[in-house]
Amino acid sequence: MKIESLEDLREDFIGEKRVHIFNAGPAALPLSVLREVQEHFLNFRGSGMSITEISHRSTLFEEVINDAIDRTRRLLKLSDDYHVLFIQGGASLQFCMIPMNLALPGRPVTYINTGVWSTKATKEAHVQGKDVRVIPAPEDTDFSSLPTDFTVDKQSSYLHFTSNNTIKGTQWQQFPDAQGVPLISDMSSDFMSRPFDVRPFGLIYAGAQKNLGPPGVAVVIIREDMLKRVPDTLPTMLKYTTYRDKKSLFNTPPTFAIYVIDLVLTWLEETIGGLTEMEKVNKEKASLIYEVIDESEIYQGVAEVNSRSMMNVAFRLPDEKLEQSFLAEAGNNGFKGLRGHRSVGGCRASLYNAVTIDSVKSLATFMREFEEKS
Amino acid sequence: MKIESLEDLREDFIGEKRVHIFNAGPAALPLSVLREVQEHFLNFRGSGMSITEISHRSTLFEEVINDAIDRTRRLLKLSDDYHVLFIQGGASLQFCMIPMNLALPGRPVTYINTGVWSTKATKEAHVQGKDVRVIPAPEDTDFSSLPTDFTVDKQSSYLHFTSNNTIKGTQWQQFPDAQGVPLISDMSSDFMSRPFDVRPFGLIYAGAQKNLGPPGVAVVIIREDMLKRVPDTLPTMLKYTTYRDKKSLFNTPPTFAIYVIDLVLTWLEETIGGLTEMEKVNKEKASLIYEVIDESEIYQGVAEVNSRSMMNVAFRLPDEKLEQSFLAEAGNNGFKGLRGHRSVGGCRASLYNAVTIDSVKSLATFMREFEEKS
Repeated sequence: MKIESLEDLREDFIGEKRVHIFNAGPAALPLSVLREVQEHFLNFRGSGMSITEISHRSTLFEEVINDAIDRTRRLLKLSDDYHVLFIQGGASLQFCMIPMNLALPGRPVTYINTGVWSTKATKEAHVQGKDVRVIPAPEDTDFSSLPTDFTVDKQSSYLHFTSNNTIKGTQWQQFPDAQGVPLISDMSSDFMSRPFDVRPFGLIYAGAQKNLGPPGVAVVIIREDMLKRVPDTLPTMLKYTTYRDKKSLFNTPPTFAIYVIDLVLTWLEETIGGLTEMEKVNKEKASLIYEVIDESEIYQGVAEVNSRSMMNVAFRLPDEKLEQSFLAEAGNNGFKGLRGHRSVGGCRASLYNAVTIDSVKSLATFMREFEEKS
Repeated sequence: MKIESLEDLREDFIGEKRVHIFNAGPAALPLSVLREVQEHFLNFRGSGMSITEISHRSTLFEEVINDAIDRTRRLLKLSDDYHVLFIQGGASLQFCMIPMNLALPGRPVTYINTGVWSTKATKEAHVQGKDVRVIPAPEDTDFSSLPTDFTVDKQSSYLHFTSNNTIKGTQWQQFPDAQGVPLISDMSSDFMSRPFDVRPFGLIYAGAQKNLGPPGVAVVIIREDMLKRVPDTLPTMLKYTTYRDKKSLFNTPPTFAIYVIDLVLTWLEETIGGLTEMEKVNKEKASLIYEVIDESEIYQGVAEVNSRSMMNVAFRLPDEKLEQSFLAEAGNNGFKGLRGHRSVGGCRASLYNAVTIDSVKSLATFMREFEEKS
């Protein structure tokens, strides 16, 4: 489809009363998934009940959660020594659970600090009195670039990093060299956006509300050897072993969120064709916007070029007044969620998996048109 | 509407392909609520986005969560010193958070043990090494009745009890006398089913998936003075003060679940007319089934008469074979969720708020017809 102007694309969206969603999270979901949820909402698989009413102990729901686990395993090519868990509380509860479960007695924990989310994760290790080592981001770049050269204490219980930083829009294109220490990553904002080698990872976690589904659940992938560290003395709901032993069904899980995740994973496998295909699309989407920025006189990218994120493109305009007028006009044209994080301002286009290439092309066209006029 | 036979009622339900839902949780939701969710699922309040896609920091969502809080306050007539919080992890995470946040140093915590859920709550206080005092259920009744006469250690940090016990189907018709100690109650299975005086309570909590909405969130009502006990040293996501200070928006909350809760509370206030009206309906529903049991030669109630629950009617048939045939035939006639808890077997009809009186009348008729035939 060749896009000549914004008008070529807008028609369809208005026909569906749907806007272009560039939200940072909760974020866009595939329209086909939303339609499926809607169609079957009163009668889940012929049960005569809504998905929100069926028992988490029913065969019907077991099929859903098992399918979600199997698809996760296939998409990430997980070997048998990895477990896929669903845990409530989002990435923020993982910030607490990780040091609680996985810090080894008398050994430090190491965090790479690349922004607000890494800082929050680190804080929870401090709160628990762990011996925390921090690898800082490059000085004076205000988190707009990632560290390249650092040494990890070999005694570290783990090396924690944030794979994608939503606020400034940076992303590890190559994961940090863990130097023999188990890697742990908060992948909330780029999980399932590209293929990667899981083997260096002891644990990966992702709040669902960017690439996977609605908020209210985190997917946690944990390697069996890490589970041996879990202290017996922890509260039941805060032990990773509880979720492994009970297959994430110790208590009632967020059934609706897991159901939507299963539909999104189905879309990812069957409609998109897997993570290699997804990455191609995501790269194309990101390059469409970065191209506009790189050719522009008014848009300035926030992240340094080598650290740029495929998921979140943060940019500024020359002054706040122009930013406000850009955001307002974008909103009037059906482009939503472009305001930068409340902690930094500016603009940001989040291009998660479910944001369509048509939406991104429309935005690129809009950005060019806005620049021409201004 | 006079019900002559099962056939009179079944028609409508088959027309809607909807079954009679007696699930113990997740459980029935009001059909009008489900229809509203479905109708607007692709376009929430004209935003052009699904409720699952909108930002938790948007005005749209703030309206939802604030409305849910306001309705909770009105329905329970809460004074200003109570806070309404939404916390992920269900009642099971509350089992952990309560002793962690509210046990006073050097003072015991007291639990009334009336069944499986109380036992689980107590266990989490033990895990944390608290000085736990347990008030047992009457001996030799196997949790089919509630304790009536007991003394509470005045030094107790709190007195915890489970207001309704889903497995054996017992319920406190009058709450235990706390003897000056702050009351804490797990009201997961009868919250919002009847009016009550909140003032003796320091904290009330309820997993949503019985009377309030889909699973994935607990409503916690906490009195300001209890928040003074929260130790500064707790992980951020495990402190009640975090949820008060950030109005349950420290991190991304389960937006969909809170949205459905708001719709259910709207239904409760505006369609049902409040908790006094809801209690009338619930009493009528329960008495329809207990009447069948009391007049029957084959159905035997599990709970002692004085401890009977309005929410969960547990009953047995003379032998397991007859139970199986009852459950099978009930299932074929559209009565779902009647199997007793996997830990005890037998039968159980859960009659939560959203179970309609017509469903209950149909079940009573079916039970009578089944007895006549057998």
